[in-house]
Amino acid sequence: MKLNGRSYRTIWPHPTEKACICLIDQRALPWELVVEEVRTADEMATAIRDMHLRGAPLIGSAAAWGMYLAAARGEELPDAARRLRATRPTAVDLFHAVEESLLAARTAADPVAALYEQAAQLTDRSAEQCRRIGEHGLPLIRQIAEKKNGRPVNILTHCNAGWLACIDYGTATAPIYAAHAAGIPVHVWVDETRPRLQGSRLTACELGEEGVPHTVIVDNAGGHLMQHGMVDMVLVGSDRTTRRGDVANKIGTYLKALAAADNGIPFYAALPVTSIDWQMADGLAEIPIEQRDGHEVSYVEGAGKDGQRTTVAVAPAGSPVANYGFDVTPARLVTGIITERGVSEATEEGLGRLYGRPDPFGLTAP
Amino acid sequence: MKLNGRSYRTIWPHPTEKACICLIDQRALPWELVVEEVRTADEMATAIRDMHLRGAPLIGSAAAWGMYLAAARGEELPDAARRLRATRPTAVDLFHAVEESLLAARTAADPVAALYEQAAQLTDRSAEQCRRIGEHGLPLIRQIAEKKNGRPVNILTHCNAGWLACIDYGTATAPIYAAHAAGIPVHVWVDETRPRLQGSRLTACELGEEGVPHTVIVDNAGGHLMQHGMVDMVLVGSDRTTRRGDVANKIGTYLKALAAADNGIPFYAALPVTSIDWQMADGLAEIPIEQRDGHEVSYVEGAGKDGQRTTVAVAPAGSPVANYGFDVTPARLVTGIITERGVSEATEEGLGRLYGRPDPFGLTAP
Repeated sequence: MKLNGRSYRTIWPHPTEKACICLIDQRALPWELVVEEVRTADEMATAIRDMHLRGAPLIGSAAAWGMYLAAARGEELPDAARRLRATRPTAVDLFHAVEESLLAARTAADPVAALYEQAAQLTDRSAEQCRRIGEHGLPLIRQIAEKKNGRPVNILTHCNAGWLACIDYGTATAPIYAAHAAGIPVHVWVDETRPRLQGSRLTACELGEEGVPHTVIVDNAGGHLMQHGMVDMVLVGSDRTTRRGDVANKIGTYLKALAAADNGIPFYAALPVTSIDWQMADGLAEIPIEQRDGHEVSYVEGAGKDGQRTTVAVAPAGSPVANYGFDVTPARLVTGIITERGVSEATEEGLGRLYGRPDPFGLTAP
Repeated sequence: MKLNGRSYRTIWPHPTEKACICLIDQRALPWELVVEEVRTADEMATAIRDMHLRGAPLIGSAAAWGMYLAAARGEELPDAARRLRATRPTAVDLFHAVEESLLAARTAADPVAALYEQAAQLTDRSAEQCRRIGEHGLPLIRQIAEKKNGRPVNILTHCNAGWLACIDYGTATAPIYAAHAAGIPVHVWVDETRPRLQGSRLTACELGEEGVPHTVIVDNAGGHLMQHGMVDMVLVGSDRTTRRGDVANKIGTYLKALAAADNGIPFYAALPVTSIDWQMADGLAEIPIEQRDGHEVSYVEGAGKDGQRTTVAVAPAGSPVANYGFDVTPARLVTGIITERGVSEATEEGLGRLYGRPDPFGLTAP
């Protein structure tokens, strides 16, 4: 998708330098476009942990490129795997990507080439998955549009499940971009998404660059909008979804799901099937929730009057803070799961059908 | 209550200068204690509109003092009333206070003295109401404490319904301060409350000054905490409550009420009976919701590295924003209403009993 009018992916191998990966450093957006060059697995681990990049699919791809860098630098792969796994606890894509890389290296004559191929394929596959999520989500938006007599379909989204969280297209945004491209009038309510403001900084940025009408709101506002008929659909991403359809996503998603249910508004999560964790059933009990540095709550980063990024304190210095990164929306509040294989009910049966069989990994049979 | 270890109210007549009212300029908190001296009704209208002070009870008192200033300066009272009424549309206390002042002036031999007396009495009465709200709310906290075997009662609050929103004690905080004073261990989850951050800036500040254990969280976090048994009670204020018990309060309150209901956690609103609007039944349909300047959403004010208050942009310059100030929590989600006259169900019958009779103002009889 576009930044400053030019098409980008979020991560790509350097066009000329071997063992160098380029990525968009999202910490500088929306004010600056900074492309970071990463040369070691440790640098990639830092980029993931310190959120130069974020978003479950992109973290997966970054981890695979990190494994490639480790191989290219002659590092011990299990060591690199351990360091990459330790960066973020919630996103299942990260663990998948590292496992697949280890497996690919183990069976390859040329591990460096194999890990490059592995990361490149994962990245391409991830972009293609998002494109298909868009295709499968589009009819849901079209259906609503047909009842609105030309008025825009109002979609509320939380955090950034846009192309900046992925390789391209995004997950939650893919159906929106598809609808916009198909000439369906859409308008997106963008939750700013404290503490890190991925909504106002990233989602608003990418929607603006693509010309999609949108309005930034504080995270507190969505319930009011839904009570007053100003939201037709809630559409979010997911960091991990259990086989029963419980959806872990950015902290605050659960509150929007409650409001959607209370007001009869459909609530969809859009995600690649790779982020469905078939080993987990009960999301509330089983999905580990990352607790991040309280600094993200006590301080807000933005652009100062001079245009430079700067940080301001927003709480008394003596007040303790807590910073939970995600919450779990129970399946009962989820209208449907939009994946690259189609749209499913948020149930074990529904998700199994995406694979053409129940219990696709043989994990739940007694 | 205390700031920098000294006892204050939020508003008081200047001890020596006639026709001068002192108030704590809350825009400087928690970093600085600024006492503003207000000398005209217009200055008071500015202080209310631009939120040098806020909170329904305090706005009522400020409006009464504004009417006194108008009289003392020989201004036309209906003009001053109009300007004061035009400042904030949601808080019913404001309209009450202005009406009572007009009435007091009309029947008085010395309107200046009468309006001084009117404002001073309203202010004292308001402080006393809050003290009693604390008395009536205390048993609710004590009840929960008895089941917790010495572990603290976890109370989640939204925005600032503390003494800084009132004259003294606060509404939602009054039972908390009463419990703390009674030796009941309490811990308060403080929603930061975007866009204006009254939670992290004011509620955390006043709880800290009084030594009440608390933790600041983003507005997105409360649902997660409730899902995991980390909240025993939600306790908020109200800007206006309908006779059927619908509660208008700071935007985002409704989302917390939904989460409380979903997790079987009691949700209380604490308010003086003067903020119950007996002319209104259906809060969602009838209570006007203030839309404020989008600047509050696009920018965040905090303390810069030099300790000076400064403002940073947090959204792309080209992105539209919307800024709804309040939402309405339907009575069905409200466990009870804590008032200076006792605790009531959020129903017309229950609220009527606070007056010892149904339809206390003869407004709903056919």
